[in-house]
Amino acid sequence: MARKKRYNVAVVGATGAVGTEMLRVLEARRFPVGKIRLLASERSEGRRLSFNGSLYRVEPLDTRAFDEIDLALFSAGAIRALEFAPEALRRGAIVVDNSSAFRLENDVPLIVPEVNPHALDRHHGLIANPNCSAIIMLVALKPLHDAARITRIRVSTYQSVSGAGARAMWQLYEETKHALRQFEVRSSKFEVHPKLRTSRFKLPTGLPQQIAFNLIPQVDVFLENRYTREEMKLVHETRKILEEPRLPISATCVRVPVFVAHSEAIWIETERSLSANEARRILQRAPGVRVIDEPSRQAYPMPLDAAGRDEVFVGRIRADLSAPMPARPEESRAGGSKGQAGESVRNGLALWVSGDNLRKGAATNAVQIAELVIGKR
Amino acid sequence: MARKKRYNVAVVGATGAVGTEMLRVLEARRFPVGKIRLLASERSEGRRLSFNGSLYRVEPLDTRAFDEIDLALFSAGAIRALEFAPEALRRGAIVVDNSSAFRLENDVPLIVPEVNPHALDRHHGLIANPNCSAIIMLVALKPLHDAARITRIRVSTYQSVSGAGARAMWQLYEETKHALRQFEVRSSKFEVHPKLRTSRFKLPTGLPQQIAFNLIPQVDVFLENRYTREEMKLVHETRKILEEPRLPISATCVRVPVFVAHSEAIWIETERSLSANEARRILQRAPGVRVIDEPSRQAYPMPLDAAGRDEVFVGRIRADLSAPMPARPEESRAGGSKGQAGESVRNGLALWVSGDNLRKGAATNAVQIAELVIGKR
Repeated sequence: MARKKRYNVAVVGATGAVGTEMLRVLEARRFPVGKIRLLASERSEGRRLSFNGSLYRVEPLDTRAFDEIDLALFSAGAIRALEFAPEALRRGAIVVDNSSAFRLENDVPLIVPEVNPHALDRHHGLIANPNCSAIIMLVALKPLHDAARITRIRVSTYQSVSGAGARAMWQLYEETKHALRQFEVRSSKFEVHPKLRTSRFKLPTGLPQQIAFNLIPQVDVFLENRYTREEMKLVHETRKILEEPRLPISATCVRVPVFVAHSEAIWIETERSLSANEARRILQRAPGVRVIDEPSRQAYPMPLDAAGRDEVFVGRIRADLSAPMPARPEESRAGGSKGQAGESVRNGLALWVSGDNLRKGAATNAVQIAELVIGKR
Repeated sequence: MARKKRYNVAVVGATGAVGTEMLRVLEARRFPVGKIRLLASERSEGRRLSFNGSLYRVEPLDTRAFDEIDLALFSAGAIRALEFAPEALRRGAIVVDNSSAFRLENDVPLIVPEVNPHALDRHHGLIANPNCSAIIMLVALKPLHDAARITRIRVSTYQSVSGAGARAMWQLYEETKHALRQFEVRSSKFEVHPKLRTSRFKLPTGLPQQIAFNLIPQVDVFLENRYTREEMKLVHETRKILEEPRLPISATCVRVPVFVAHSEAIWIETERSLSANEARRILQRAPGVRVIDEPSRQAYPMPLDAAGRDEVFVGRIRADLSAPMPARPEESRAGGSKGQAGESVRNGLALWVSGDNLRKGAATNAVQIAELVIGKR
């Protein structure tokens, strides 16, 4: 895209959980927006949303919606992306799509700006925004991969309901309200009515199971190999972004009763051993990362702190006690310390990350990609 | 303990989250209780609790409390166990202690009845009940260990607040109520007020952080190696119970806003390869296990289903896609199928379990141990 002063931007899916966040991020990062056009399905027609202090009417998503648009930020699901992204491209817009529709296409760059900005060079107008859990994991892992080469990843996620959209947030809110309404708290000071423990109430729309005071070990649909599509997205997108097509990865994705921010318990194995202290120093210098790792102060990443923030919070960094000891000490990372006295140095690390799935996991990452495209950064 | 018809039972910590559950489990399993004595700290003095249809007064925990007691079920923390378990033993009682005080002592059996009942033979009156997360994990893993020999375990937990006692349940209840009270829901049908996403309110007692709509990647205190004590309990207790003193294990323990039942995402590596189908068949026959693993029906273990139940729910059983392929196919488990057409068979499995931490993770397991001791089973 040629450099110019202002860009006409379309936000597709503007009323959704990610779409509304897109508007906030475009404002906060002072993206050089000329005209803005807010597009959504008919359900949202007539709604007005504010942007930079003005109210804009939500317009229907049709082929003419992309006339005169320079940049289209899509966050409307795979089906609408497949239908309308080609229209936007035909009309000369650059498209950044947040759905899974094009992510694994060979000629579509899949970009996390802190991780693989160079892959943008090959774009043909369409750029894919990765899965939220993949983005959050990779911002934390890429600096460690560069330092010690990651050879295996196991990750279990703790994903907030906003990852399933605004409806799922509503579901958590309503189910929780309903659950609390049902109980009389016993007279005893520290005893919760037994009913509260197993109270059942599921909103008919949204997630496949009750989420209030519960966990759902299913994110997206199941595939034939008994992994969910979300789990396999983490595998395939990570491999594409790191350009490691055979990197062994296994994921377990779980929905938790949290509104915003995904968290992940990660184990990595590495070719060269890396002490937890080295890893911490590397991450402290890494772009987009905020290290919160002071056990003595009970400081570690939590979704409540990560929500509303653009950085990925990383903590609980420690040796994977189950990882093999390095075969020979000289295999340790050249130039790195061998670990402080008493520190266990192995070819594996465990860590815990939290990141805002609507911001860095979606809207912020998409706007950062757009900034790279227009050469703002 | 000599067989006799009825046993005088003391429940120590009778008013706590586990203690009250002990009474329910003793009733439900028709344990042959003669006299029952409910003991607790002075804070609970004068309270009355029901057992088998009668009300019993809570008595103070002192040295004379164990006169004429045959069986003392302790669930009052490590400090009280260290002080009073010796008194109970001196007076001739068998002690089953739910705290961590004695679990790793050489001459104290640490028992999960489905896993290592033989270890009871060596008891000297004092038997330790393992950590709740360890019990729940081991009921699921032992049958797989017998079939294929587990060589490595990585586990991340999703632990309910009741694991931290009745006060923490109260904390989740109060914080959630407070969070919901703060918001006005916007007029829009599926939009939750942004404040809800990051609402802050922490009850002064209980867990170290707000738990409502949040996650706390800290269970118990931090140790010098940057693991928490809970994480290291999982390591050491698993090794003792499986009699595998060097089994490599790494755990990440996380508190989640769920009232009852702990869940765990587990990866195991095995000496012999085991297909997911074989593992499922083995677990379907295993004592204390309920397999819920039908992705096509969206059926998998969830805390809401496991709460109030004595079985450990196991599901999401699948090949660990990141595990190495077996070196030679003939290393597969002798007699086992090599996996159905297209099924990936590796030296590793991923699974997901949920179990009631107050019941199988504590009270039920303790009562089962008592049943073994009196030869009821």
